[in-house]
Amino acid sequence: MKEIIAEIIAIGDEILFGQITNTNVQFISSQLDTIGISTISQVAVSDLGSEITKALDYALLRADIVLITGGLGPTKDDLTKYTLANYFDSELEINNEALAHITNLVESRGRQMNELNRLQALQPVKATYIKNEVGTAPAMWFQTTEGKVVIAMPGVPFEMKYLMENSLIPKIKETFTSKPIVHYYVKTIGIAESTLAIKIEDWENSLPSNVKLAYLPSYGQVRLRLTSVADESQEVTYSLLEAKVKEILPTIGKYIYHLGTDIEFEQIIAQRLITNNLTLGLAESCTGGALASLFTAMAGSSQYFIGGTIPYHPSLKVSFLGVNQSTLDTYGVVSEETAIEMASGAAKNMNANIGIATTGVAGPTTGEYGKGVGTVCIGLWINGNTYAQTFNLMNVRETNIRLACIMALNMLRIKMDELKLV
Amino acid sequence: MKEIIAEIIAIGDEILFGQITNTNVQFISSQLDTIGISTISQVAVSDLGSEITKALDYALLRADIVLITGGLGPTKDDLTKYTLANYFDSELEINNEALAHITNLVESRGRQMNELNRLQALQPVKATYIKNEVGTAPAMWFQTTEGKVVIAMPGVPFEMKYLMENSLIPKIKETFTSKPIVHYYVKTIGIAESTLAIKIEDWENSLPSNVKLAYLPSYGQVRLRLTSVADESQEVTYSLLEAKVKEILPTIGKYIYHLGTDIEFEQIIAQRLITNNLTLGLAESCTGGALASLFTAMAGSSQYFIGGTIPYHPSLKVSFLGVNQSTLDTYGVVSEETAIEMASGAAKNMNANIGIATTGVAGPTTGEYGKGVGTVCIGLWINGNTYAQTFNLMNVRETNIRLACIMALNMLRIKMDELKLV
Repeated sequence: MKEIIAEIIAIGDEILFGQITNTNVQFISSQLDTIGISTISQVAVSDLGSEITKALDYALLRADIVLITGGLGPTKDDLTKYTLANYFDSELEINNEALAHITNLVESRGRQMNELNRLQALQPVKATYIKNEVGTAPAMWFQTTEGKVVIAMPGVPFEMKYLMENSLIPKIKETFTSKPIVHYYVKTIGIAESTLAIKIEDWENSLPSNVKLAYLPSYGQVRLRLTSVADESQEVTYSLLEAKVKEILPTIGKYIYHLGTDIEFEQIIAQRLITNNLTLGLAESCTGGALASLFTAMAGSSQYFIGGTIPYHPSLKVSFLGVNQSTLDTYGVVSEETAIEMASGAAKNMNANIGIATTGVAGPTTGEYGKGVGTVCIGLWINGNTYAQTFNLMNVRETNIRLACIMALNMLRIKMDELKLV
Repeated sequence: MKEIIAEIIAIGDEILFGQITNTNVQFISSQLDTIGISTISQVAVSDLGSEITKALDYALLRADIVLITGGLGPTKDDLTKYTLANYFDSELEINNEALAHITNLVESRGRQMNELNRLQALQPVKATYIKNEVGTAPAMWFQTTEGKVVIAMPGVPFEMKYLMENSLIPKIKETFTSKPIVHYYVKTIGIAESTLAIKIEDWENSLPSNVKLAYLPSYGQVRLRLTSVADESQEVTYSLLEAKVKEILPTIGKYIYHLGTDIEFEQIIAQRLITNNLTLGLAESCTGGALASLFTAMAGSSQYFIGGTIPYHPSLKVSFLGVNQSTLDTYGVVSEETAIEMASGAAKNMNANIGIATTGVAGPTTGEYGKGVGTVCIGLWINGNTYAQTFNLMNVRETNIRLACIMALNMLRIKMDELKLV
């Protein structure tokens, strides 16, 4: 079984002007990874036919599968379909199945079919038509004479995702067989990347040559990722990686908050809240709703998430959360004392088992609270026990908000450990 | 003055496994765009020396500037520096300025210098050292014999951003001169891409050949982007694009919410709130803090944003916002009646001029409220006037949350227009 290699080409001037984040390529690579297909390169090019052709030529030199997104819309700047028809020397014809689906979709939205909608049913006859259930631009599947595959998908993220998950990944799996790629994660927090690397240097040097180790630092955390191709089964390889990781637990165990999968911190906390039948109320001043968003973005959050308050104006800390005005006056809005009163007010007013509060100076200016940019106080209330901690973060607003969320989750994790709420 | 072309290479297996979103390339391209440098391609490759070299070879065939991010960390999987030293046939030596800075930074964080920190001061002697004020990995600037430039930066986003803004963009501007690229945006909402394209077809065909038009659809909106290289001054080109856009205002004016810059919807609203001296309070059920996050992510939001509540549990709609239990019982949690009471409760309890409320079924399951996934009711309270609207959105949770935020902002915009709060 030979390794199957993919290359991804994203098309669109908006990517090259830096006007949008190209989230599509990440999604496509992650989907391919789950079925053992490695992405050798992700490329973004402009929506000129010549650039698309050049990128495709280069990709087909080394990849077995080329996945293209973008440029399948109905307007004049959408050239992917015509470029591919030309590349594969294929006529274009109205595909009746596509036309019926597009008509149906347009009319269900209470609109009339127009000529541009109709043109979206024009398909290269050499391509297999892949129905787009959630949009008007179909996907296309070309096979080269060498058995390579070129897939074109629309660039609208939710359409591309739907097509990948429901049609293309299954069809790729039917067409190619590949050994699974196995990842094992060691998620750490509170230790610098270089310190971590030195602590586990001997162990790293002892890793077998078919195990690749990567250090992935982000927002106060370092993830270690061990990767190996599964020569036998996925389970056997996973167990081998797990056994290898066991060797470093005595050395770095206290920094580890999760082993195995790469799930997000908030998912770990959510799972633990559900397991322990605990509920959560938030009081977010400096994080301004970002922490609530992390939880509410996950399906099923209403199982444990009661609600939140964002008392941006100091008076709301009093009126919504029952913080004492004298606490604000004596210790300041950004203080551990205020954070604790906010957290307990959140828990009590929402009848939750746990309250988390953030108050701080996200930046870029220090504001009126007399503390420096990056000063963040986090308060916790867990079934009547209270905790607070002050952090000195960075000087970039966005980073401070992200970091404050992570620090809040981590404080909760540590205290739940101490209280044996695992 | 010839056009200056850049190519960006992002290095890291985590990108190719689909484990992180590559936001760095977007930032770099957008920065280059502001100084008139076009990105011809963005490429992501693995952290193998051979892949980096191949990508660099290919990039230097056509680009004047190659910007590389990633692989400059202290660990064994960081190979960029060594690969570049080899590529440019350069010795590596400890750079004393770098060493002093790294020592200072590490010790200021209360840690001891270790061997890996020290190795970060090892620099290719043929490269110009670019100090990284906010991290331990310096950037590097190589000049080829043909006058091309290769820049390597760390992949940590806030370090890369700091280096681009403070050191590299100024140095690139000194080294290359390029005609500015001018963009002019027409931001529309409430009209489908194909309908829009048909309405302005004649106008599109009449555009001069040096003006490129793009359609950028996203979350209920379509942005039109006109792009032209400034042959004379930036102002002259901007005025030409503006005059051209004036021609379509009679046709599509009612769908346009902003002309000129590409600023985000929430920035437009924030600006209008400040101009009109209005304050805002939120009550977010189905958006779960996402709308508050949009506002609080912007510096200066405390000028108009009083606060928010996230009454996830229905009882909080009563206790925090004063919604009548009978309203919930009669009309349901997801109803226009509830949305209006939430909005007025938010405004009144926070003493704000405007209250916005969201309540709906984000998905993926319908939950207990008897409405289908994607049903979202938005309520508005503006100085005593109330409005509500029901939207039938999509079936994807993340998309529904994003769309509900956009719909809320748009409702506010329309009502502010009607009330002449422009």
